[in-house]
Amino acid sequence: MPTILFAAKSERWTAYEPPLRRALEEVGLGHATLTIEADPAKVDYIVYAPNSGLTDFTPYTRLKAVLNLWAGVEDVVGNPTLKVPLARMVDDGLTEGMVEWVTGHVLRHHLGMDRHILGQDGIWRGGDAPPLARDRSVAVLGLGVLGSACARMLASLGFQTHGWSRSPKSVPGVTCHHGADGLRSALSQAEIVVLLLPDTPATENTLNAETLALLPRGAVILNPGRGPLIEDAALLAALASGQVGHATLDTFRIEPLPADHPYWTHPQVTVTPHIASATRTETAARTIVENIRRGEAGEPFRHLVDRDRGY
Amino acid sequence: MPTILFAAKSERWTAYEPPLRRALEEVGLGHATLTIEADPAKVDYIVYAPNSGLTDFTPYTRLKAVLNLWAGVEDVVGNPTLKVPLARMVDDGLTEGMVEWVTGHVLRHHLGMDRHILGQDGIWRGGDAPPLARDRSVAVLGLGVLGSACARMLASLGFQTHGWSRSPKSVPGVTCHHGADGLRSALSQAEIVVLLLPDTPATENTLNAETLALLPRGAVILNPGRGPLIEDAALLAALASGQVGHATLDTFRIEPLPADHPYWTHPQVTVTPHIASATRTETAARTIVENIRRGEAGEPFRHLVDRDRGY
Repeated sequence: MPTILFAAKSERWTAYEPPLRRALEEVGLGHATLTIEADPAKVDYIVYAPNSGLTDFTPYTRLKAVLNLWAGVEDVVGNPTLKVPLARMVDDGLTEGMVEWVTGHVLRHHLGMDRHILGQDGIWRGGDAPPLARDRSVAVLGLGVLGSACARMLASLGFQTHGWSRSPKSVPGVTCHHGADGLRSALSQAEIVVLLLPDTPATENTLNAETLALLPRGAVILNPGRGPLIEDAALLAALASGQVGHATLDTFRIEPLPADHPYWTHPQVTVTPHIASATRTETAARTIVENIRRGEAGEPFRHLVDRDRGY
Repeated sequence: MPTILFAAKSERWTAYEPPLRRALEEVGLGHATLTIEADPAKVDYIVYAPNSGLTDFTPYTRLKAVLNLWAGVEDVVGNPTLKVPLARMVDDGLTEGMVEWVTGHVLRHHLGMDRHILGQDGIWRGGDAPPLARDRSVAVLGLGVLGSACARMLASLGFQTHGWSRSPKSVPGVTCHHGADGLRSALSQAEIVVLLLPDTPATENTLNAETLALLPRGAVILNPGRGPLIEDAALLAALASGQVGHATLDTFRIEPLPADHPYWTHPQVTVTPHIASATRTETAARTIVENIRRGEAGEPFRHLVDRDRGY
């Protein structure tokens, strides 16, 4: 039976221990050793959160894989002491939660809900029906598991859905663009932009003064992806000029977002506290245990990170 | 070539005349007479809005059909002078707009968006992720064209979707209930209720003190259907007691909703001005003209109202 080290902050252990034990039981690995302390030379798998404090993998001499608790791997992928396969979290629950957040906030901006939610003046504005989704262009930047799922759902609601990724991809119902020219095409018609790119050196500041200027005036930005995808000063300037109409942000360069950050009080910015991609412990535990089962059965791991590309 | 009388308020004529003429041209009826004034004895079709002032159909002796501009027919279906087929508006655009409004507001309440939109206190509440849609039960009352389309979309987002109609129906992915017992089953588990029933004597006050009491405490009501489906005093009482957590209402017994109505200022009520089922003139004109084309070709009309059932 394998030894599994859970390397994350203690509050994670409280949340994950019961669902991990249930998931191990389900696949016939109920007798595995699941622990937060182990002799490194005896550890087969590490369930890993990058802020766990564990940064030197050298002593883990029989390690078979590192199974990341989160989708983002930017804080571990470059670790030179990590020589074994690294799997990122691809959790059905994570994808579902992301699709729900993205679809909800796209529809919120599409329907112009805020003016109804933010207060009513008793004046009936009956002619104020929004356009149909089929007359609204939306762009999803990043067509990985999360971006593709969101783009497909937006397309099924009828939105003119454009997707962009670095290399060519194909998503049913979605007009896919790629490369630097493709980014310009995708942005130049996007009334709502959804950022779901991985956080890599190549994607940092994807939205900057130059790219924000490509958008139709008054466009809306949704960032449930990663904080560094946006150059914050450029976004604040574009909001001030009216080039960007609203930004709904779920991820930030520093989290928690500091209490004195201008985003909190900006009337055209909505802050949500990194809830779009919240991992649900039950479904996440099953994803991790499925890779342990595969490792024990000699089957290939799922959701492996390409260490050269960084995601 | 047929004579088509457009019987609606003058602002409708301004909006509809160009798309109707375009749609007639498209089907080879460009030479039809489309008018707002005609000798009743010469009229073949009436494009009809119930508030047009036309209530006596007796003089229209060669009339072939009345084509309602709206989905709701409650103000014309009982007219004893109407002896010819009555078609209601079933517009792709109408269905799309309804699905967008319903999906958007269901996700808004599901995600708890209002607390992020209504103001930010600079406090990061990171543990505050909403449940997944798969753990949220939603009920759609009314499984006609609009209700079925909304229920299917909610099911595709993963919601535990229940539907209710008077007679048995089947919608893929949706747990369908019917009859009086079925209404109790549907309501007793519904965290979010969507009203899309037709307005008939049998559906009036579907939500009243007794049925509202069946809901889980804190349930959310969405009414994009018809105002009389809700007994307003009972809803206000249920909001006051906390039995209902929020109501987002798009339709009312009196429209425009009077400026002094308590719904406007109620903190747990969101008013939208009958925009969920706003008819889009281009797509609606095509629906009407398709029935005229069918009438001229001797084909059966589409979307006929069952005069006995009232919808």
